[in-house]
Amino acid sequence: MLEIETVGEPGGEVGYDMPCTVGDRFDQIETPALVIDLDAFERNVARMRVASEQMGVRLRAHAKTHKSAAIALYQMEAGGACGVCCQKVAEAEVLVRGGVADILVSNEVIGEKKIERLARLAGRARMAVCVDDADNVADLSRIMARHGVSLDVLVEIDCGAGRCGVEPGASAVALAQAVDAAPHLVFAGIQAYHGKAQHIADPAERRAAIAASTEKAARTVSMLADVGLICRIVGGAGTGSFDLEGTSGLYTELQCGSYIFMDADYARIIGQGGGPLGGFEHALFVLTSVMSRAAPGRVVCDAGLKAHAVDSGLPTVFGRPDLAFSGISDEHGQIDDPAGTLRLGERLKLVPGHCDPTVNLHDWYVGLRRDRVETLWPVTARGKIW
Amino acid sequence: MLEIETVGEPGGEVGYDMPCTVGDRFDQIETPALVIDLDAFERNVARMRVASEQMGVRLRAHAKTHKSAAIALYQMEAGGACGVCCQKVAEAEVLVRGGVADILVSNEVIGEKKIERLARLAGRARMAVCVDDADNVADLSRIMARHGVSLDVLVEIDCGAGRCGVEPGASAVALAQAVDAAPHLVFAGIQAYHGKAQHIADPAERRAAIAASTEKAARTVSMLADVGLICRIVGGAGTGSFDLEGTSGLYTELQCGSYIFMDADYARIIGQGGGPLGGFEHALFVLTSVMSRAAPGRVVCDAGLKAHAVDSGLPTVFGRPDLAFSGISDEHGQIDDPAGTLRLGERLKLVPGHCDPTVNLHDWYVGLRRDRVETLWPVTARGKIW
Repeated sequence: MLEIETVGEPGGEVGYDMPCTVGDRFDQIETPALVIDLDAFERNVARMRVASEQMGVRLRAHAKTHKSAAIALYQMEAGGACGVCCQKVAEAEVLVRGGVADILVSNEVIGEKKIERLARLAGRARMAVCVDDADNVADLSRIMARHGVSLDVLVEIDCGAGRCGVEPGASAVALAQAVDAAPHLVFAGIQAYHGKAQHIADPAERRAAIAASTEKAARTVSMLADVGLICRIVGGAGTGSFDLEGTSGLYTELQCGSYIFMDADYARIIGQGGGPLGGFEHALFVLTSVMSRAAPGRVVCDAGLKAHAVDSGLPTVFGRPDLAFSGISDEHGQIDDPAGTLRLGERLKLVPGHCDPTVNLHDWYVGLRRDRVETLWPVTARGKIW
Repeated sequence: MLEIETVGEPGGEVGYDMPCTVGDRFDQIETPALVIDLDAFERNVARMRVASEQMGVRLRAHAKTHKSAAIALYQMEAGGACGVCCQKVAEAEVLVRGGVADILVSNEVIGEKKIERLARLAGRARMAVCVDDADNVADLSRIMARHGVSLDVLVEIDCGAGRCGVEPGASAVALAQAVDAAPHLVFAGIQAYHGKAQHIADPAERRAAIAASTEKAARTVSMLADVGLICRIVGGAGTGSFDLEGTSGLYTELQCGSYIFMDADYARIIGQGGGPLGGFEHALFVLTSVMSRAAPGRVVCDAGLKAHAVDSGLPTVFGRPDLAFSGISDEHGQIDDPAGTLRLGERLKLVPGHCDPTVNLHDWYVGLRRDRVETLWPVTARGKIW
C-alpha cells in the first residue's frame, strides 16, 4: 500500500503553534488534538478504491470532509479518486494551490466576485460547478467569457434533500438547455445528491429513499437525452449510500467524503450487508485528557464545543463502552465513569459525532502510526467558507 | 469615546486569505463572514465599564468569547477591565504574545507539559489559575518552583454548575490550605462561576439561582477567613447575571464575555429590569448571501454549520422578523421567506445562537463602521484549544 507522504516537521512552537511535533509519543501530544490513526485511514481509502473499481464507477472524493490538499492528493494517488469535490470557492482555491487539478464545486456559486474567483481557478485547473438558477447561468457564462475560460456545469436537481436544486424533469431540462446554449459553459450532466438519505440508519429504508431519488435522476437523464443533452456526469452519493448509487447503473461519480474517517453518526448506520457501512473503521479521533475528577461517578475532560461539533450528537469514547460522554459546554466535556476508573490526566480517544464540522475546528491533523506522531498535516482549508 | 485602534490592512489575498479588505463596502464582503458593528460593540464595552464602576467591582473580561488580543487590550484600555480570563493555556500564550499582561486561566490546567507552558507564561505576565485537586496543586507548585516563578491560585468551587470545582465549604478550605502551604503558589481566593444560571431566561428564577450559588460562595469565604485565608479574589459571573454578583457585596471580579457581542441566546434572556440584559445590543453577525431560491417560500443561504455554532439554537435574521432561519447543514442554511421577498445574492445579517463557539469558526473579524470595512482583526486564538 502506498503510504501517504509524510510532510516534514512543520515549523513552529509546540503549544503556541501546534499540539505536538513529529516523533512525539502518543502521551506527549497536548490535548485536545485531532488525531488520525494512519493505518485505519489508509485501509479506509483502499476499501473505497476497491469498492468503486468493482462497481465500475468513478470516485470523486469529497474534500469538504477533510479540507486538506494533502489528503485530496492521497485520495487521487492511492485511493482511486478521479478528482475531488468541495463546497466553497475558498476551499477550491486552497486545493488548487495545493496541487489538486480536477475539482467540482458541488454547490451553487453566486455573485460577481465569487464567480470571478471561480474563473481564475478555471484558468489553472479543471473546474466544474452546480447551478439551479437561470440568472446564475448567465452570470457564469458572462464572467467565464471575460476570462476566456471554460467551465463544466452540472444542473442540480432536488431529488429528495429539499435544499438546493431545481425540480427533476422539465425544470432541469430547461436549465440544462440554458447551460448548453451559454458560451464558455459546458453542460456536463446532473448533480443528484440526497444528503438526508445518507443518515437513515435502517438499510431497507435507506435503500427505498435512494431508489426514489435515483428514479427522479433517471427520469431527468432520460428527458435530457430526448433533447440531445447527454449526461457525461451523474453525480451524487455519500458514505451512507454509495453502494446503492454505485450499482444503480445510472450514477457515474460518487461523492463520498466521510468514509476516510467515519464518525459516531455513520457508525450507527447499518450497511446493506448488515455490518458497518463499507467495512469502514474509525480513523479520526479527538484526543482528550481528564481535567477534573472532583465529583464522584463522573469526570470532566478538556474537549468541549470548540473541539468537536455536536450537531449529530455527542461523541463516543473509543474502546470504552463502560464510559458515556454525557454533557458538553464550550471547553469541557462530561464523561460518566460510574466505576471511577479514570485518573486525572488520563487520555481518551473520542469519536466525533460528525466528522466534517469537527475537522473544521482544528488547525492540525496529528497523524499517528501506532504510538508515534508520524506527521502533522495542516487543515489547509479550515475556515475557508467564503 | 476611545475608538479601537485600527489594525493596518492585513497582508494577503482577498479570497484565498480573507473575505474582504479594509475600505471595502458592505456589499463587497465575500460571504459568509463574521462582522462586528463597531459602533454597537464600542457601546457595549462602555456599558459594562460604567456598570462595573457603579457597582464598585473589577471587570476581568472573558477572552474565551473573542479569542483576540486586540479586543482584550481594548477592553483593558477603554472598557475598564483589570485584565482578562481565558480557558486554555494556548489562548493565554496568544494573549501574552499579543501584549496582555494580566490573565486568569479560569480553568484547571493538568499535566506536566501544560503546566510547564503555564510556568513560562508566569515568567512574562501576571498569571492565575484555578484548581480542584490536591495532586494538581502539588504539580503546579513543583513546576513553578523549577521555573522560579510565582502563580496566583483560585480554588474553584462547584456552586451549582455541576462541572469542575470542589464542594463548597470544608473541601474548599482543605484545598486552599494545601495551596497556601505550597511553595511558589499564592492563594488568591475562590472561583465561583455558575454557568448554567447565565442562561435562565426568567429574571426571578435567575436571581434565585445566583442567590443560592452566592450563599455557597459566601459560606466558603467565611470558613476560609476562619482559618486565616483571605480571598482577595472572589471570581465568577457572566453576562446573564453580572448585575447580581456585582451587587452581592461578595464577588470582587466579574468574568463577563458575551456582553461585547450579544447573541440570540442571550437576547432571549430578560434583564432584572425587564429589558435586555445590561442594555447590550447585537454587535456580532454572520453575514450571509442567498445562494438558491429554487423552491417557493424558502431560500438557501451560504452559512451553515461551519459558519455558526448551533448548540444554543439556530441564528435569527437581524431586523427581519418576517424571515425565519429554519434549517442548517454543513454549508447551507434554510430561511423561510413565505412572501418571496429575497433575491438571489441578497445579503442578510444573522445573529448567531451562541457567540463563543461561532467566533471560534472564523479566521477574521470584519469590523464595520456603518457601511465600510474599517478593520480586519484576526481571531488570533481561534483553534487554540490545547
